[in-house]
Order: sequence, then structure tokens, then C-alpha cells
Amino acid sequence: MSNPNFQKCLEACIECARACEACADACLSEDNVAMMAECIRTDRDCAQLCWTTSALLARDSEFSGELCAVCAKVCQACANECAKHDHQHCQKCAEACRQCAEACGNMKAAMV
Amino acid sequence: MSNPNFQKCLEACIECARACEACADACLSEDNVAMMAECIRTDRDCAQLCWTTSALLARDSEFSGELCAVCAKVCQACANECAKHDHQHCQKCAEACRQCAEACGNMKAAMV
Amino acid sequence: MSNPNFQKCLEACIECARACEACADACLSEDNVAMMAECIRTDRDCAQLCWTTSALLARDSEFSGELCAVCAKVCQACANECAKHDHQHCQKCAEACRQCAEACGNMKAAMV
Amino acid sequence: MSNPNFQKCLEACIECARACEACADACLSEDNVAMMAECIRTDRDCAQLCWTTSALLARDSEFSGELCAVCAKVCQACANECAKHDHQHCQKCAEACRQCAEACGNMKAAMV
Repeated sequence: MSNPNFQKCLEACIECARACEACADACLSEDNVAMMAECIRTDRDCAQLCWTTSALLARDSEFSGELCAVCAKVCQACANECAKHDHQHCQKCAEACRQCAEACGNMKAAMV
Repeated sequence: MSNPNFQKCLEACIECARACEACADACLSEDNVAMMAECIRTDRDCAQLCWTTSALLARDSEFSGELCAVCAKVCQACANECAKHDHQHCQKCAEACRQCAEACGNMKAAMV
Repeated sequence: MSNPNFQKCLEACIECARACEACADACLSEDNVAMMAECIRTDRDCAQLCWTTSALLARDSEFSGELCAVCAKVCQACANECAKHDHQHCQKCAEACRQCAEACGNMKAAMV
Repeated sequence: MSNPNFQKCLEACIECARACEACADACLSEDNVAMMAECIRTDRDCAQLCWTTSALLARDSEFSGELCAVCAKVCQACANECAKHDHQHCQKCAEACRQCAEACGNMKAAMV
């Protein structure tokens, strides 16, 4: 856990997971839920990857760098999807995803 | 793992988790996705509970009985919701949920 | 999410999950690892239940109260086990488990 | 789900997750548990990655290929670690890990 990016990355993963869970649930209550289908799908995948990455980071797993690299990709895809929608929960989620994509990218780079 | 219901319960949880994941994804592609919102929510919760219960059963956790009791409730709720919809994926999921609710109920009863 | 205990409970689950992951990993590096076997087992179960409960709370699941009740039991058991050991990571984990057991208990009570 | 490797990969992930959960638990009951610490760590990470990959495969996630690539690496590392130990649960786990590493590798290759 001597990696200076470690704590920041773990916090970013947790915040992103929470935002994605809340966004997916809120999307299911929107009037135009058919338009939100892809957002719900990426939210769900992003939440699950972020929770899993959080768990591996929290136990200082030797595989956390590899998982961070995948997590960064999923977060970026989710940020792009959420950014298309004006709902407040989508905009908030997009920002959490961007920050997590950056933190996971830095974490991976520092571990190679 | 001497409990005779153990293997059956673990298999039922895995089948139910798979059916719920597939049903939620298929629901998001339906024309009437707004009508499927509650089904997607219960599918998601049921899938996550079933995967978690599978993990605890697979490692013979002392808490698997307690978790089976909650899993049985979520499975029953998901079976009831899915049964309302004629889509093949919903009907298939409802059946997997019913079987898992029964298996988890038996498992819990046998462990008390 | 109008439940006043909601935010506190979610934060407690996340802190507890992190403490349990770190404690299990640290236990595996102790000289007397054989003495830590039960602590590792309960840490692992408690971490997984806390992450799962966090996910359901974060999406305001209708089943989060039921899961909180089980989570409170597992947290209490883990607090009791960790409290037996003088290692700093065990004492820290025991305290996180106690706080999470209390928060989950309050959450469950408020939802009934 | 038209990928011919899909079903095989999902089954392999589930079998591997189960074997890793059982192996980690059995390792904690061995006399020489200190010698099994690294095996327990890799078992735990491998189980969690395999369950997560199973969930994404089961809902036909667009990110399952990326996750399969990481899962294959973790499975190969776990196979190598388990193969060092003569315990039956380790040998059985090593075989499940090898098969899952191969299935995930094929899955990833077919999706690119």
C-alpha cells in the first residue's frame, strides 16, 4: 500500500460504485426509461467492476493493477454514456466515472 | 458440507443467478421497458444475492444458512414479479427463482 | 433514501468491508497464522456481506433491510472473533465491525 | 451469446470459482496453514474474479471480453500456485483454474 495513488484510487472506486448504483436505480424511474437502457447496462457493469476493484485494492491484491486497467476502461465508457443524458443523476455519475477512470489509470501506470 | 441439501442448493443458486442476469438484460431490450422496471430491479437484487449465497455455500461458511433465508425471500419476490410477464425470459426466470426459493428454504431449515 | 440511518449505515458498511479485507490479508502474514484461521474466515464473510449490503443500500433496494439484519449478525460475530487478537489490524477491524453491526441493526429496525 | 465459446467459458468460470472457494477454506484447516498463505490469497482473488466474470458473461456484457482477459491471468497464477501443493483440494483447484484460464483466453481471442 506504499503506492501514493492507492488511497485515492480506492476512494474513487467506492464513490463511482455508489454513483452508478444510484444512477441505474434512478434511470429505471425515468419517464423515458427506454432511452436509458444503455445507461442502465453500463451503470450496472461499472458498479460491479468498481466494487470488485475496491475489494482487491482494500486487501492489497497483487492483481489490483490488472483489474484497475479494466475498471478504467469501463468507467470511461460509463462516463461517456452518462454524459449524454441531462438527468442530474447521470451528470453526477459521469463525473464520478471520469474521476475513477483517471485514478485507476494512474494506479495501473504506477504499478507497472 | 454433509448437509444433503447443500449441493442442490448451490446448483439452484447458480442457475437462478444466471437466469436473473439474462432476464434483466433481455428486459432492457423489450419494447415496453418501462413496464419491466420492477422486474429489472428484482432481477438485479436476486442475481446479486444468489451469487453471494453461492460463494458462501461453496466455502461452507457458517453464515450460509442465514444468507439462504434472505435469499429465499428475494427469490420468491423475484419469482412473483417475473411470473407477471409473458416474455420467455421472465417465465424461465420465474421458474429458476421458485426452485431456488425452495432449495434455500430447505437449506435454512436443515441448518437450524 | 429518506431513512435518517441510511447514509450512516452505508458508510459503516464500506468502512467495515475495507477493514475486514485488510485484516484478512494482514492475518495471512502473521507468524501465528494457524491461530488466525477463524479470524480470516469471518473477515472474508464479513467483507463480502458488507460489500453486498453496500451495493443494495446504494441503489435503495427494497431488500436492503433484510440484508442489513444478516449483515449485523455477521459483523457482530466478526467483531467478537477479531477482539480476541491483539494485532492492531484485528483491534481496528473489531471496532469497524461493532460500528457496522450497530448501524445495520438501527437500519433494519427503522425499516420494519 | 452467439460466441461458440460463451457457454463453455461461463461453465468454466463457475467451476473455477467453486473450486477456489473450497480450496481456500480447506487450506485454512491444514496443519501447515502458514505454507498455504499465498494459496489462500490467490484462491480468494481467483474466486472473486471468476464470480464477477460469470455475472458479466451471464448478462452478455460488452465488457466480458476485457474481464475474461484479466480472469485468465489470475486463473493461470492460481493454477501455478495450487499446483505446488499436494493436497487434493489444491490439485483439483489447479485443474479447474487451468481449464478456466484456457476458456477465458479463447473467449477473449474470439471477441477481439
